[in-house]
Amino acid sequence: MAEPDLHRAAVFGLGSMGSGMALSLLRAGFDVVGFDPSGDAVARFVAAGGRGAASPAAAADGAGIAVGVVVNAAQTEAVLFGPDGAAAALPDGAVFVSCATMDPERARDLARRVTDGGRLYLDAPISGGAARAATGALTVLASGSPDAFARARPALDAMAAKIYELGPEPGTGAAFKMVNQLLAGIHIAAACEAFTFAARQGLDLAKVYEVITASAGNSWMFENRMPHVLAGDYRPLSAVEIFVKDLGIVQDMARDARFPVPLAAAALQLYLAAAGAGMGRDDDASLARLYAQLGGVSLPGEPQS
Amino acid sequence: MAEPDLHRAAVFGLGSMGSGMALSLLRAGFDVVGFDPSGDAVARFVAAGGRGAASPAAAADGAGIAVGVVVNAAQTEAVLFGPDGAAAALPDGAVFVSCATMDPERARDLARRVTDGGRLYLDAPISGGAARAATGALTVLASGSPDAFARARPALDAMAAKIYELGPEPGTGAAFKMVNQLLAGIHIAAACEAFTFAARQGLDLAKVYEVITASAGNSWMFENRMPHVLAGDYRPLSAVEIFVKDLGIVQDMARDARFPVPLAAAALQLYLAAAGAGMGRDDDASLARLYAQLGGVSLPGEPQS
Repeated sequence: MAEPDLHRAAVFGLGSMGSGMALSLLRAGFDVVGFDPSGDAVARFVAAGGRGAASPAAAADGAGIAVGVVVNAAQTEAVLFGPDGAAAALPDGAVFVSCATMDPERARDLARRVTDGGRLYLDAPISGGAARAATGALTVLASGSPDAFARARPALDAMAAKIYELGPEPGTGAAFKMVNQLLAGIHIAAACEAFTFAARQGLDLAKVYEVITASAGNSWMFENRMPHVLAGDYRPLSAVEIFVKDLGIVQDMARDARFPVPLAAAALQLYLAAAGAGMGRDDDASLARLYAQLGGVSLPGEPQS
Repeated sequence: MAEPDLHRAAVFGLGSMGSGMALSLLRAGFDVVGFDPSGDAVARFVAAGGRGAASPAAAADGAGIAVGVVVNAAQTEAVLFGPDGAAAALPDGAVFVSCATMDPERARDLARRVTDGGRLYLDAPISGGAARAATGALTVLASGSPDAFARARPALDAMAAKIYELGPEPGTGAAFKMVNQLLAGIHIAAACEAFTFAARQGLDLAKVYEVITASAGNSWMFENRMPHVLAGDYRPLSAVEIFVKDLGIVQDMARDARFPVPLAAAALQLYLAAAGAGMGRDDDASLARLYAQLGGVSLPGEPQS
């Protein structure tokens, strides 16, 4: 197998997650070329010390490791196989690290096509949010061949605090991510349902937050998101549309598998309602505003949307 | 106001929670008389050093503090106002501490009737489970008058590690408990949905447990209940029927308030299905077995029910 330059990294997607990851690679000493359809995003990365490219192919040229940090499977496919795509431009033996959340079947398909072309593929969805992306402290849920892991490891170590090695087959990492998203999506909706129900019962919401976060009803998402509702601040740290997408993937996977997911299905309807009501680009805690509207409840503060 | 003997306690209900609480009172030096419809439960308490009574009235006679640890509002009402009920037998100025989970409106009604009779009432739902009941380490979500708090405090201190004082009105404690139960009930169902969905995707469930408990999809209930599924052990630490009851109360409260709770309603249907399928007295993690049956999935171990 060819030995590509593992010191050269390409990053596709310089949004809130990708830019933090690209900067983490820079700090770790990688020579990093970034691509994003937004010229502004590229310009910001160049100003921060990186190099920019005008196409996925140009970014991939000579890179031993390429990291896809786009929104979904379709964008990942476009980066790899679209016009001026990265797949054909990557050196033989380079590894493509795919971080987008997607259906495991799509991950397996992309992996097959990349490896058929003589490159390696690591299925590596991420979690942790923009703040941890910026500090190189993400969690990575990865699966792929030992060779893919070996070549990706220096870059993974630069971007992540915790790397789960979940098996040799692409798709396993994606499936773990979808299990997490199923729970996360339900828990945000449940938190918003409980918090507005508490408001409807006339309870002091700050006290509800204190009691629940110390009780058996707590969840990571309740603890993380309900401060947004207490502050009346719905600026998007993570938008409603993310769970429209991710619970949509869960629903498609479950339907294909003839497996019922009634809670995920009910939660998806709430994200759809919030998006349909105009809150799609607001923070996902906006489901509390949806419940408040439906149930005639006043919440603290005013929406900043 | 009369000064009853605050060193004399009555405990109504000597089940897994009540017996632990009665023993905690004994250890703290209270003279405790226990009542339970089950003679065996009373005999066990007497063997452990307590005193037994043949009726609520007999247990209440001379007690400055009375603790109701029964299943619901109807049983609490029976203890207080049924045949040989405690309410008329308690000394003037005694405090009744009501620990059953119930609709806040029922708590307010019981409080009104108890205080109209010259006794005090503390609305004091508990959480923490049998193990923490046994060690005097419960959490109490309490509301009531300052006098009721003052007279109940020595007993509360003996039974609980954490006492939330949630306001002067009975019903507030009950409402906080119902918000917690709404979340807890949804989270158990979501955990079972996610865990069996993961099994359907062919994932290693022990690894799923490790990854999710360290991720944003975690909940207190996922962390606490999924080990039962991993072990295939559905002996009831907390039974399916508890959430049939508690999500039923949530649904009734929400309907009365004209407030939609679609996730709690969907979760209740799952508990009803599990109970209808014969798992009502098994552990609430049995919802995983329900999903497994519906979705054609094999789970670890064999049910021990």
